[in-house]
This record gives sequence, structure tokens and C-alpha cells, in this order.
Amino acid sequence: MLTIDSIRKTNPVILNVANMVTPQHVADAINFYGGSPIMFTDEREAKELTNIASGVVFNMGSTNESTLRNVLASGKVANKRGIPVVIDPVAVGVTELRQANFKRTADEVHFDVIRGNAGEIAYLANVNWQVNGIDAGNGSGDVVAIAKQVAQKYDCWVVLSGPRDIVTDGNITYSVDNGHPYFQTNVGSGDMLDGILATAISVENNLKALVRATATFSIAGELAGEEYPHQPASFFVELFNQLATISDDEIDTKMKIHQL
Amino acid sequence: MLTIDSIRKTNPVILNVANMVTPQHVADAINFYGGSPIMFTDEREAKELTNIASGVVFNMGSTNESTLRNVLASGKVANKRGIPVVIDPVAVGVTELRQANFKRTADEVHFDVIRGNAGEIAYLANVNWQVNGIDAGNGSGDVVAIAKQVAQKYDCWVVLSGPRDIVTDGNITYSVDNGHPYFQTNVGSGDMLDGILATAISVENNLKALVRATATFSIAGELAGEEYPHQPASFFVELFNQLATISDDEIDTKMKIHQL
Amino acid sequence: MLTIDSIRKTNPVILNVANMVTPQHVADAINFYGGSPIMFTDEREAKELTNIASGVVFNMGSTNESTLRNVLASGKVANKRGIPVVIDPVAVGVTELRQANFKRTADEVHFDVIRGNAGEIAYLANVNWQVNGIDAGNGSGDVVAIAKQVAQKYDCWVVLSGPRDIVTDGNITYSVDNGHPYFQTNVGSGDMLDGILATAISVENNLKALVRATATFSIAGELAGEEYPHQPASFFVELFNQLATISDDEIDTKMKIHQL
Repeated sequence: MLTIDSIRKTNPVILNVANMVTPQHVADAINFYGGSPIMFTDEREAKELTNIASGVVFNMGSTNESTLRNVLASGKVANKRGIPVVIDPVAVGVTELRQANFKRTADEVHFDVIRGNAGEIAYLANVNWQVNGIDAGNGSGDVVAIAKQVAQKYDCWVVLSGPRDIVTDGNITYSVDNGHPYFQTNVGSGDMLDGILATAISVENNLKALVRATATFSIAGELAGEEYPHQPASFFVELFNQLATISDDEIDTKMKIHQL
Repeated sequence: MLTIDSIRKTNPVILNVANMVTPQHVADAINFYGGSPIMFTDEREAKELTNIASGVVFNMGSTNESTLRNVLASGKVANKRGIPVVIDPVAVGVTELRQANFKRTADEVHFDVIRGNAGEIAYLANVNWQVNGIDAGNGSGDVVAIAKQVAQKYDCWVVLSGPRDIVTDGNITYSVDNGHPYFQTNVGSGDMLDGILATAISVENNLKALVRATATFSIAGELAGEEYPHQPASFFVELFNQLATISDDEIDTKMKIHQL
Repeated sequence: MLTIDSIRKTNPVILNVANMVTPQHVADAINFYGGSPIMFTDEREAKELTNIASGVVFNMGSTNESTLRNVLASGKVANKRGIPVVIDPVAVGVTELRQANFKRTADEVHFDVIRGNAGEIAYLANVNWQVNGIDAGNGSGDVVAIAKQVAQKYDCWVVLSGPRDIVTDGNITYSVDNGHPYFQTNVGSGDMLDGILATAISVENNLKALVRATATFSIAGELAGEEYPHQPASFFVELFNQLATISDDEIDTKMKIHQL
């Protein structure tokens, strides 16, 4: 079983192609959780950096020609080396460019995990959904069915995050019922989770580890919310404190996981 | 009258061409105030993203050829659709490039709001001012006259922010006498205000709404300063907390507005 | 002797070519310490911005063709004007690109200060070191000898930061034994120190000033750690509070400096 202690001891290097809004928060999240983040902007070092990494994260928010090249170059090396690839299709349904960039990446790189909100995963499943910019929006579809469908389509794990997180390999599906409403009110919560998932499965690459990492982030948020029930920005600072200090005992005690 | 409740209910999508220093803080400010921020770097999605937005913000700090193209592409669509455009001429007087980029944008895009500090607005009014990098510096000019002149020149509203904020359409002018000295000691306060103004006037597009939004940000700072009178960084976290939880009653009670 | 009061009174403009992860934290650090940060991305304003600056900082993490051009353009002007240049060779040993970009910069620009962790300075001294991504890693070399060697090689000051900071001109060497373990657990601590060093020596350009600035940052961390012994993210917010309010008396009382 994946333990937080093993993550901290391993301190895996996690390479990121980040968006231009939340890179500091993502680096902090990886770092406080126990990994060692590294980021870059020049395609020419993609190969070498991927070679020293234990996992990679591709955030497709605010991509452009240059960052897409970085994603493709790093992704191919990651696949060759067999290290985990996490992709976040930020607001993928919103523009043709985001759709094309995701499709191009999916054609050339195999993902271990697609992590998105309901609106993003729904788009990948060709299910109609009412999105609002980068936010999940409101849809009436069945999020479990949508997540499973996307997992099967891309032959990977899907983490659909929201008030209830869904983690699935397309057959076996878990819900994570931990969490806090302030995750939705902080820009970059999902991006941070991407980094945490990559860190976790770079240490132990299975569905249970993915579920536990998802729950760990949510539980850190619950603990932060107990400290700051009415202060969403203080919540965010405390979320980092909790990530850095949470124990396996706390995770075991608080984890609310159900196989669906 | 614009209410904070109506902003939170509307949750308008605000598109940003951001600088490379403060995008996270700007996204957070928009988000905690009640909007939904989105950012991008590739010109090819400027049109589509502007089409789903209710307002746009152009931050001209650290612009380059690529970001200028994004500003122009997005600005033209915003004008065609009639959604508000807020521009921040960061340190515009300091380099020829910043002057040229602002001029080019002004030639091709109509602004609803120019938001700057005294040094930046003075430059646009051709008034001599002693600036210090990105800071307002010290000038002996009449900030009200300068703000009015720029509003008339560009046929838009001007928010000149400082210890006393000036909000004008070139004829009618208000001062906002709320605020806190720690706004000046935090990098990105002005950038955050840009996002808040765009969010506000995307919900109700008039001078009173602009004044109230300016006051709301300043009052959130006053409340934060009461909690952290000697801790400028804690002030900033608390500023976000206050922005997310402030009520119309608090704004009404604390607002210090004068028509000049 | 350099005083914190003189820094705050001078409020020097510090120009940064930043990486894409930590620019907000670096700007905040410079600002809270008493300087006025400015950043840019377009080579065409490198000269003018360097002309209004009192010091420059080149962060070589996530460099690319464009940022390298910015570094070279700004560095040459800084050398011509005699204002201090601080360079941070982030993870320089990790990729050929980072090695080539550093070499190119060293060939064309004279540095006043190289600031790096043990792994980075060891690379520049051609000493074998076990690095881990952006982290210092573990090496068995003599950090004092390594720092002195690099200072002699590049004819500049070296600040090798770690649990014990080493500050040397290649002959005279000081250790700074202040600090806190949480510096290592926060992404961007070193980048922030770069900005602080440039701010300090732009006011008083000598080895003692460099030592005192290094100690000031470490002491601010000690004070922050007293407030938040088990909360690494709250530590970081408090570090900024302390930087903004620390007095020369506090620095004098707490400073643990030894000439080696």
C-alpha cells in the first residue's frame, strides 16, 4: 500500500509543463506532499529532464505552440521510460485550439491518468455539459458513467474531481467522498491535485495508490476547513500546511472511499 | 445598484491577458470577488475565449509581441460584442516599447476603463511625474485633473488608484477615501483591482458600479488591516478572505465616497 | 555598514529576468525587503529597463532562447553601468541547455554574485555531486572549498546557500549559521534570496553587505519558524511579514556570522 512516508522518503522528481497561472501553487503542492517539482519552457531540455524525472504532469491550460511541443517531446520520453504521465485537459471543450492540442497529444502520448472536472471529462466523453469558463459548470449526466467511458476510450485511469471525486480504470470505480467546498473557490486546486497524483503513482503505480492520493488531498482540505471555516484564502495556506504534515494514520482514519 | 450578491450570482467569466508576475493573484482576486477568471497565451484562441467572456482585462506589464497580439485580437472581439475592456498601462512611461504597445492598443481597441497609478495616468496625460519603476512615485500634479484629462482623451472611465482613488468619466468625478497603506507594499494590488473592476462592470456597466467596486476592494483592505496591522503578507491573505465574504451591508457602512 | 533602514529609504529598482514558477514570490521578497522589483519578457526593453535599475537578477531556471537574449542584453548594460549583477544557475548541472546558457552568459557578462545551492555550485567547480532535480542533493565535497573555487574562477562573490550559508570572494569567507529547515521545503527560497542580495548590494556593494543580507533573510526565517514551528506554508507568509518589519537591532542581535 502506498504510504505518505514512502513518498516523503522517495522524494520523486516530478516534471511539469505548467500553465501560466498556477505554477507556484503546483510546485508547492508537489513539494509539500513529498515530491521534488521541476519545470521548464525550452523543448531542447525536455528529453534530459524527463530522463531524470519519476513522473510528468501536462497542464493543458494556456498552452501554445511552444508548450505543446514540450508536452509531446516529454510525453514520448516518459512513455518510452514507462514513467507515469498525468494530463489535465483544462477547459478542453471551450476552444478548438484546446481540443486540437489535446487530440494531438492523445494521438502521440499514452496517459496514465486524465484528471479533470465534470465539464472537462464530459467533453472527452462527447457528453453535453454546461461549462462556465474554467469551472465545471452544471450538467445532468452521470459522472460515474462519463468517467468510466473516458477511461476506456483512452485506456487510462480517470480522476473526475468535484464535490465527490470519481477514480476509475474503466471497470473498477471508487468514489472519494472527502473534500471541502473551498477547493472549488480556489484557482488551481485541480492543477495541484494533478501534481499530487503524479507524485503518488511515481512511487506506486496502481489504482489504489491513485485513490489514496486523491483522498489525501481532500482530507488535507477537510482539516484545513476545520481551522478556517470562513476564510477561503487562509484555507489554502492551511491546505499546504496539512499536506506537509498529514500522517498515514490521519488518512486511514478519515478516508471515505467506496467502491461503486 | 450593483450588489456583491448579484456579482456572486452572475459569476461572470473574465478573460485576462496577464503579466508574468501576478497572474495567480489576479485570478484569485477575480475568483474570490465572485467572477470566474480565464487566461491564455495563444492568439488562436483569443476570439473564442472572448466570445464566452463577460469582460476582459489587459495587463500591459511584461508584454511582448505575442501578448500584444493577444490583446489586439481579444480587444477587437470585445469591442464588437460590447463587453467591457479594462486596460492597465503598467509602467507605461518607463520604456518606449510600453509606450508603443499602449498606443497601438489604444488605436485599435476602445477601453471602458484605464486603471493605473498616478505615475502611469500622468504619463498618459503628458504630465511630468517622477516615477520609480513600477511604483507611482511622487509628482506634484493634480491627480483629479490628470485623471479627468485621460478620461476625456480616451473617451473612457479612469480609475487612478493610490492612497485616495479617483474614479472619473471626464466630467463626473468621485474620490474613494477607503484603503490601507499595505496595498502599496504588495506587488499586484493594482493588477488585482483591474480584475475586480472588469468583474463588476461586466455585471452592471456604469460609473457608480465602478466606484462601488473600487471601494469594495479598498474596504476589504481596511478590514484586513484591522486584523493584521503589522503583517503586510498576512494582510494580503486576509484581503482575499475579506473579498470572498464581504457583504453589501459592510460595503454600505464603510464606503467613503465623495463626488468632487 | 549596510542597514535595513538605508535599503528601505533608497528603495532601489531591481530588474529581474525571472523563471516561470516563482516570479510573484521573488517580487514580493524584493518588495518587502525594501526594493522595487520590475520584470519583463521583451528584449527590446532590456536596455531601457536596465538603465533605470540599480541592480539586476538573472534566474536561469526555465530559461529559453527569448529569456537568454533578455539576460545577455540586460547583463551587458548592467556591466557597462557598473550596477550589480546576481545570477542563479538553477539546476545548472542537470541539462546541457542549462550548462550552455550559463556558459554563454558567463562569457559575455560579468557577475557580481553567483547564488546557488551546493549541487549547483559544485557543478560550476567541476566537483561531482549527487543532485535531485532542483534540490541540492547530497555531496561529500567541502562546500567552503567549492564556493571559493567558483568565486576565483568567475572573479565574483559566491553565496552557497544551505543549512549553513557560505559567502566568499574567493579569499575571505564567512559562514552564516542562521536559518530554518523550512527554507528547504519551500519552492523559491533561493530565488527570493537572489533578489534580496541584489537589493542589498545595489545600496552598498561590498562583501559585508552581502553577508548581512544573507543573514537577514535567514534571521527572518528563524523568526518565522518561532511563530510557525509545524506549518511550513504559514512559515512562508510569516517570512514575508518578518522581512518587511525586521530591524537592524534584531539583525545585530541574532546574526551568527563566522569568518572561516
